[in-house]
Amino acid sequence: MTRPLPAEMHPQRWGDPARAAALPESTRGLVELAFGLDPRPVVADAPLPASGLDDALLDDLRDRLGAEHVRTDDDARRLRTRGKSTPDLLRARAGDLADAPDAVVRPGDHDDVAAVLAWAVAHHVAVVPFGGGTSVTGGLVARREGYAGLVSLDLGRLRRLLRVDHESMTAVLEPGLRGPEAEALLAAEGLTLGHYPQSFEYATIGGFAATRSSGQSSAGYGRFDALVVGLRVATPRGEWRLGSAPANAAGPDLRQLVLGSEGVFGVITEVAVRVRRIPTATVYEGWRWPSFDVGADAMRTLAQAGMLPTVIRLSDETETAINLARPDAIGPSTGSGTDPGCLMITGFEGEPTAVEARRTAVTAVLTGLGGTPLGEEPGEAWAHGRFDAPYLRDAMLDVGVLVETMETATWWSNRARLYADVRAALTDSLGEGALVLCHVSHVYETGCSLYFTVAAKADEDALPQWRAAKAAASEAMVAAGATITHHHAVGTDHKPWLTREIGELGGSVLRAVKADLDPTGVLNPGVLVP
Amino acid sequence: MTRPLPAEMHPQRWGDPARAAALPESTRGLVELAFGLDPRPVVADAPLPASGLDDALLDDLRDRLGAEHVRTDDDARRLRTRGKSTPDLLRARAGDLADAPDAVVRPGDHDDVAAVLAWAVAHHVAVVPFGGGTSVTGGLVARREGYAGLVSLDLGRLRRLLRVDHESMTAVLEPGLRGPEAEALLAAEGLTLGHYPQSFEYATIGGFAATRSSGQSSAGYGRFDALVVGLRVATPRGEWRLGSAPANAAGPDLRQLVLGSEGVFGVITEVAVRVRRIPTATVYEGWRWPSFDVGADAMRTLAQAGMLPTVIRLSDETETAINLARPDAIGPSTGSGTDPGCLMITGFEGEPTAVEARRTAVTAVLTGLGGTPLGEEPGEAWAHGRFDAPYLRDAMLDVGVLVETMETATWWSNRARLYADVRAALTDSLGEGALVLCHVSHVYETGCSLYFTVAAKADEDALPQWRAAKAAASEAMVAAGATITHHHAVGTDHKPWLTREIGELGGSVLRAVKADLDPTGVLNPGVLVP
Repeated sequence: MTRPLPAEMHPQRWGDPARAAALPESTRGLVELAFGLDPRPVVADAPLPASGLDDALLDDLRDRLGAEHVRTDDDARRLRTRGKSTPDLLRARAGDLADAPDAVVRPGDHDDVAAVLAWAVAHHVAVVPFGGGTSVTGGLVARREGYAGLVSLDLGRLRRLLRVDHESMTAVLEPGLRGPEAEALLAAEGLTLGHYPQSFEYATIGGFAATRSSGQSSAGYGRFDALVVGLRVATPRGEWRLGSAPANAAGPDLRQLVLGSEGVFGVITEVAVRVRRIPTATVYEGWRWPSFDVGADAMRTLAQAGMLPTVIRLSDETETAINLARPDAIGPSTGSGTDPGCLMITGFEGEPTAVEARRTAVTAVLTGLGGTPLGEEPGEAWAHGRFDAPYLRDAMLDVGVLVETMETATWWSNRARLYADVRAALTDSLGEGALVLCHVSHVYETGCSLYFTVAAKADEDALPQWRAAKAAASEAMVAAGATITHHHAVGTDHKPWLTREIGELGGSVLRAVKADLDPTGVLNPGVLVP
Repeated sequence: MTRPLPAEMHPQRWGDPARAAALPESTRGLVELAFGLDPRPVVADAPLPASGLDDALLDDLRDRLGAEHVRTDDDARRLRTRGKSTPDLLRARAGDLADAPDAVVRPGDHDDVAAVLAWAVAHHVAVVPFGGGTSVTGGLVARREGYAGLVSLDLGRLRRLLRVDHESMTAVLEPGLRGPEAEALLAAEGLTLGHYPQSFEYATIGGFAATRSSGQSSAGYGRFDALVVGLRVATPRGEWRLGSAPANAAGPDLRQLVLGSEGVFGVITEVAVRVRRIPTATVYEGWRWPSFDVGADAMRTLAQAGMLPTVIRLSDETETAINLARPDAIGPSTGSGTDPGCLMITGFEGEPTAVEARRTAVTAVLTGLGGTPLGEEPGEAWAHGRFDAPYLRDAMLDVGVLVETMETATWWSNRARLYADVRAALTDSLGEGALVLCHVSHVYETGCSLYFTVAAKADEDALPQWRAAKAAASEAMVAAGATITHHHAVGTDHKPWLTREIGELGGSVLRAVKADLDPTGVLNPGVLVP
C-alpha cells in the first residue's frame, strides 16, 4: 500500500473531515442568486441513545474478538449511524442519532464473522454489515423492533489481498478494503480493478459486491457484478462458497443472487475478482454536442458498434450550463460561448497503441455524428474532481439548499420519455425554482443510465420535502417501466417501489431465500426484502 | 420465415430422419481399425406403456386447448420421450420407452401455459417443459412416482417474434422457436441473435434460456445468459415478468435465477434478447499450433487483450489427428504433413472494415505467438459441418461404438490439470482402447471451457459402461474445482455432483426457491434441484 488511507468519515458529513469546506466563492454567488443563503447549523455533540445491549451479552463477543473490537463508545457508534444519503445527513445534522447501533463489532476474519452471526442468532440481535458507510439508500438503517439489540458489523479489519492468479487474471480480496486500499494492493502486482464509483475513496469491496456497484469506468472495466468471479459468504446457516468457473450452466448463477443482496442473506467475507493490467496510457477528452438527444444517440451508436471508450458520460443542457458557471463543481466546462450545448467526457485506458487506435476510431464516429472535440482540458478537469461532488452537497446543505441525486436506467427507446418524466416529477414536487441536472454515465448496447442531481431551497424541515420529491421521481421511474436504481441499490429508501419492478413473485423469492439462509432474520432486517 | 423448418426429430436418433446415414466410408475403416465393427440393431416399433392419465382429466385440458393439442397417440408420446444424451439414445434404441409421457399438451400462448399449470397443480400431474428435445443431460427424464401422471408440455406452438425494438436492439421471442426459425424471423428485420450451439437446428429459444446455453460464436455474441434482457415466466403461482433495464442494482439479478432453471421454477413464455445487425462480412480461418498448451496460451492472450474473434476454438493433438484422418468429421484438417499439431479455428463477423481490422490485429498476435496460418479452407470446412457431429454419433452407435461428449470449464491456471485429470479418468474407466478428444470452444479473460469427445468399444450393455465413465469424468471435474457443466446444464445426469459445486447452501436455496414458486412440485420433478 503506497497511498495514505483516507481518515474515517465525518459522522454528519461526507468523507474526510479535513476536506470539508464552505462553498467556493464562485459557487456561492450562484447559489445565493438561485436559492438565497439560509445558513443551517449542524447540531454538535448530539447525545446518543444509551446502548440497549446487555453488557454480559457483549462479553461473549469480547472473549472471541478481543475487547478492543467490541465497542460501545459514542465515537464508534456515532460513526456507524446510518449512511450518507441526504435524509441520513439531514437527520445527523439535526442531532438525531436514534438509529445508532448498540455496539460496533469488528471481526478479524471469516471465522470471526461466522462467530458473530452465531452469537446474533443465539441472542436474536440484529446485525448490520458495515463497509465504508457510504450507502445513499438507507441500506444501513435496519429495523430494530423485535430484536434484543442491533450491532454494526464493521468489516474494516478484513482488508487483505488474499491471493493473486496472474495467469487467470483474478485476485481474491477481503470485503473491508476500501477502493484506494484495494487498488494500492493490486498496483503492487501491476494490476487494477478499474472500479471507480463516486464513493470510491470510502466504499469497500464488500459493499461494491453487496450493492451491484457500477463505476465511472465501467464501460471499459465492467460493472462490479461483472468483475466478480467468486464469493465466500458467512450466513447464519454456515459458510457458502460460489464460483467454479468464468461461466457455467450448473443451474442458475447463484453468484448473481448474492451480488446485490445488501447483507440480508449473509456477510460477504471474500470476493474473487477479474483484474486487468494497470493501463500505461490514459486519455480523457471533452466533446460538445448540440443537444442531449444528439449526444445520447452518439453514445448509442458507439455502444452498438462495440466501440465504447473506457469512460463515457454526457451532461444535459442544464448540467452543462451549471458546470460552466461553476468550474470547480461536478463537471468541467465545454469552453464555448453563449450556447454551451452538452458536454461529453470520453476516456481511454490501456496500452498506448490500443488507446490511440480506439481513440482515433471513436473520434471519427463522434465527429461524423456532429460532436465538436474540446481537447483534453475538460476531460482532465472531470477526472480531477470526480470524487468531490459529495463534499459540495454538504456545503449546499450548510446554506439551506436541499441537494439529492437519484439514478435509473432504461432501454434506448425509452430514454427520452424517462428523462422528461423524472424531470417533470421533480420540478412538480420541488417547485419551479428547483434545479434539475442530468447526465448519462453508464451505457449499454440496449440502453443507458440517467443520473439526476436536484437542488432546491430547503424547507425548514427538509425531510418531508425530500420524501415527496423522492417518491415523485421513483413513481415516474417505475411508471416508465425503468429501474428504481441502476447502481445505488435498494436499501430502505427504494423498497416501496421494488415489488413494482421485480413483481410480487420476485419479492416472494427474495423472502424465501432470506428465510432459508437467515431463518431467524437477524441480518439487516427491514433492508431490501419487500 | 424464409427457410424450410427441419422436421421433427427421429425418436431414436439425433435430428432429421432424412439426414440419418451410415458411417461414411472414410470413417468406417478407421472405426473398424480402432474398435471393430459390431452392428447394433435399433428396436423398431417398441411398444409404449399405456397412458396412465385418466381420459376425463385430459378432457378439461382439451376444452381449453382444443382436442388436437392434447395428444395421447404413440407418435406424439414417443417423440417426447427423454432427450438426446447417449444414455437416452441407448435406451430408445433398445426399445425402452418407459419414460414416455402420458400425454403431450401443446399450449398456444402464455395463458394456455398458465392454464396447463393450474390444471397440473389441481390434479398433481408432473409437467415436463419440452422445447427442441435436445437435452443431453437427462433434463427431460423427470420423476413420475407420486404424481397422478406426467405430461410433456410442448412449447412448439409458441413460435412468434412478438416485438422488435430497433433503437434498443432488442427483440421479444417466444420460447418454442427453434434456432433457425428465430434467425429467419430476425433476418427479415436485418437482425441476428448469433447463437449457434451444436443443437442449433432443433433447440429452442426457451431451452437456450432455461439451460444457460452457449454457442459456437459466443466469444463474439455472448453466451445466451448474456443475451437475455427480459423474461416472462408462467409459474404455478402466477405470471412473473423480469427485466427493467440493461443492468440495475435493484437487489439480486433475478433474471439469472430463471436462466438455468431448467423448467423447475416455471415455464419461460417470452424471452427478450439483445440482437445485432446481420454481419455483412464473415471470415473463418484455420491456424496450426505446435501443441494444445501453446494454442491455449494464445487464446488466453487474445482474451486478456480484449481481442477475441467472433469464433475461436482449438482442438487438442488427438482431436486434430483424428479429424485429419476423417476429413468429413467433427473438424477440418490442418493440412500439414506428419505432425498435424493442433488446429485452431478463428472466425470474424461484422462490418467488412471492422472484420478486416480485427482479423489483422489477431493475425499479428497469433503469428507472434507461434501460430501458423492455414488459410480459409479449414475454417470453411468447420463452418460447413458445425452441426453434424450428433449424426456421426448415431452412426457410431450403430456399429457398436459408445460415443459421448462432456464439457467443463475452469480458470486458466487450472486448465492443464483439468485436461489431464479428465482424460486420465476417462481412459482409466473405458480402457486404453478408448479415444479421448478435446477442444476449447469458449474462452474468457479468466478461463476457458474444455469439451471432451470420447469413443470406446461398447459393452453388450453400454449403459453401466457409460455411467462409470461419466461418473469418473464428473468426479475428476469437481475434484479439480471446475464446473460440472459449462453449457450442457444439470438435468438428472449432473445432479449427483451439483452440491459439490454450489455447496449445501446452494442446494438449499434452489429447494427454497422451488418450494416458493412451485409449492406442490409439479414442474420437472427430479431435475436440477438436489
